[in-house]
Amino acid sequence: MAYQEILELRTAGRGTRDIGADVARVVAASGVGCGLAHVFVQHTSCSLTITENADADVRRDLETVMARLAPDGDPAYRHDMEGPDDMSAHVRSVLTDTGLAVPVGAGRLLLGTWQGIFLWEHRAAPQRRRVVVTVIG
Amino acid sequence: MAYQEILELRTAGRGTRDIGADVARVVAASGVGCGLAHVFVQHTSCSLTITENADADVRRDLETVMARLAPDGDPAYRHDMEGPDDMSAHVRSVLTDTGLAVPVGAGRLLLGTWQGIFLWEHRAAPQRRRVVVTVIG
Amino acid sequence: MAYQEILELRTAGRGTRDIGADVARVVAASGVGCGLAHVFVQHTSCSLTITENADADVRRDLETVMARLAPDGDPAYRHDMEGPDDMSAHVRSVLTDTGLAVPVGAGRLLLGTWQGIFLWEHRAAPQRRRVVVTVIG
Repeated sequence: MAYQEILELRTAGRGTRDIGADVARVVAASGVGCGLAHVFVQHTSCSLTITENADADVRRDLETVMARLAPDGDPAYRHDMEGPDDMSAHVRSVLTDTGLAVPVGAGRLLLGTWQGIFLWEHRAAPQRRRVVVTVIG
Repeated sequence: MAYQEILELRTAGRGTRDIGADVARVVAASGVGCGLAHVFVQHTSCSLTITENADADVRRDLETVMARLAPDGDPAYRHDMEGPDDMSAHVRSVLTDTGLAVPVGAGRLLLGTWQGIFLWEHRAAPQRRRVVVTVIG
Repeated sequence: MAYQEILELRTAGRGTRDIGADVARVVAASGVGCGLAHVFVQHTSCSLTITENADADVRRDLETVMARLAPDGDPAYRHDMEGPDDMSAHVRSVLTDTGLAVPVGAGRLLLGTWQGIFLWEHRAAPQRRRVVVTVIG
């Protein structure tokens, strides 16, 4: 059995947005008791990640690390049509992935106590992002 | 319902090969309307990724970044039995993953307009790669 | 059809533990012939990865690379409540992911010859980790 919804979410520019409640709502609507919830962004300059949800400094530090691994405006990049955050956003998306899956048990997301699901915007400006949630059981 | 095919694909050495049409063909053969298409490489020195499919410079820049994060012939590596691209290929595989899943809706892959599915060869020489595509709905 | 087990596994501190046999046992118990085995850790300071299972130097080299990409005790980190390996563990978890899926065919994990499934502890001290295995077919 598979159930699917496509969400349209706004981001506030670079940074993370907690989408756990959105995903949980789709899981509840699916009626699936045991299975998987898969989340996918239809873009190549943002990503999805699971990380610590308690201290916002964790996500700030993740940005600091990404700024080293994939800096904006790197002179080595050839692809820069949309500005200094164009190619760096693609790199960050590839390193952190456009999709993830969370197990579902007893009709709920089986996340750990400190795990949050985040939509990670890598472009500097706010964007509209399409997120496909598929629940299989 | 699950449907599976194992594809044998050749790579031309380091770089990306668009396998979106191969995956789409398996999805069509599966008859699944709503669900997930999972793609997996049975190797540890190549990977699968979703990134921008329009400008080939994006994939060239991704190689540039990988050459920094996981350089060939790094003297710190102990594992170099198969040459300078041996361990660097394992690192790149771990950073970018051996598997990914794309949602299926109305019998088609729900990729964004600019998303392509790429088999990413990290070894310098051409290889034969086994790719398992599993469609669940 | 979905089958699920939650495993409680101990780690010996930073490093990898091969959990392939644990996952294979759950697949056998599931009775699923064709489908997917999804593995997920309910934590944000360890991860799951598939890499070379023959030469342990590969995993040692992966630690060497991670120590560069996400060093312990980096003065740039703001989040360091649990010590110098706190934030570095979160970064490594995000870069290598809390979940993965392996195809199942003829009732077995369709891993390549040299592929192992590893629980990767990023904290310095031994931990108890909860791993959710979900088999769908």
